[in-house]
Amino acid sequence: MKASAGAILLQLQEQVGYPFTILSPDMYRYGGGGIASWGTLCGTVNGPAAIINLVAPAADIGKLTGELLGWYSETALPTDKHSAWAKFPQTVQSVAGNPLCHASVSNWCATSGLKENSDERKDRCAKLSGDCAAKTIELLNAYFDGKFAETYQISAETERCRTCHVTRRSDTLTKMECAPCHPNAHKK
Amino acid sequence: MKASAGAILLQLQEQVGYPFTILSPDMYRYGGGGIASWGTLCGTVNGPAAIINLVAPAADIGKLTGELLGWYSETALPTDKHSAWAKFPQTVQSVAGNPLCHASVSNWCATSGLKENSDERKDRCAKLSGDCAAKTIELLNAYFDGKFAETYQISAETERCRTCHVTRRSDTLTKMECAPCHPNAHKK
Repeated sequence: MKASAGAILLQLQEQVGYPFTILSPDMYRYGGGGIASWGTLCGTVNGPAAIINLVAPAADIGKLTGELLGWYSETALPTDKHSAWAKFPQTVQSVAGNPLCHASVSNWCATSGLKENSDERKDRCAKLSGDCAAKTIELLNAYFDGKFAETYQISAETERCRTCHVTRRSDTLTKMECAPCHPNAHKK
Repeated sequence: MKASAGAILLQLQEQVGYPFTILSPDMYRYGGGGIASWGTLCGTVNGPAAIINLVAPAADIGKLTGELLGWYSETALPTDKHSAWAKFPQTVQSVAGNPLCHASVSNWCATSGLKENSDERKDRCAKLSGDCAAKTIELLNAYFDGKFAETYQISAETERCRTCHVTRRSDTLTKMECAPCHPNAHKK
């Protein structure tokens, strides 16, 4: 969280100055490992979402953070833009499926065959921090240029779940994909 | 997130003053509904975790936030301490099982029979914001009195999962309960 929030905040401090100079990347230490290794929300998106909150009008925070979460969920990460300076130039890419640290790391371990406690995994998450900061800056630049548009689409499979559970019954709240955690829903 | 972070931040502003007076509860708008109605990390814990980060030494942030997440996961919420001023004096309590907005709201809807889009659900989440702010203040007061101790215990069932998946294979990262999302693990 500190890495991804800090990457944007330091740019704001250098290029805009006050009031961003009164803040510190150290304010965003808490979200690493999905908070205290609990694996909840991935810190690489929690941090940029906090920065979006600092610069976007309140009414549009959800559009921008939602687009970031959607992109994170369905994009093969990390990107290949880190090879010039990374400790491990080649990193296996994986798709998290949702913005949770637990799913993101588990899917990467399954895809790569590497361990969560490996140096490669730490390197991979560092690269995701850079990717999420860069994506957020792209979204914000588009937004302030008047060119931002929401593009993330919930899958048809999950929309079928939502027809009942969100719209008709209103017995849950989420935009995450349903099947990865509920693969046997309605099957006995 | 704004409500739970703000409840603590305003106390810090009133009782301590600077540097908390340069911050605003509006910095923590983004986490409501688990960020943009995605249902990821519950905003009522994301906010207090951010405030813990402001006041605790870096080395102890994880202990305090982890204790908060554990308490949130296994406690019947909301507490009954809101009845004197709440819109709905009696609120059905439920146990979230993990710190995710999606699970927390789903379990409450299932227990109460009420809808996610009801006024009662909004009132329920407002009460959770108060509960999480109050719990965090208790944790921080204990911490600064030198009386804080980690009490949350991962269940025996989940520890059995962790023996392989965290310790031996190291193919995931989480402290959340496994069974609610993986009820049929290792069953064919």
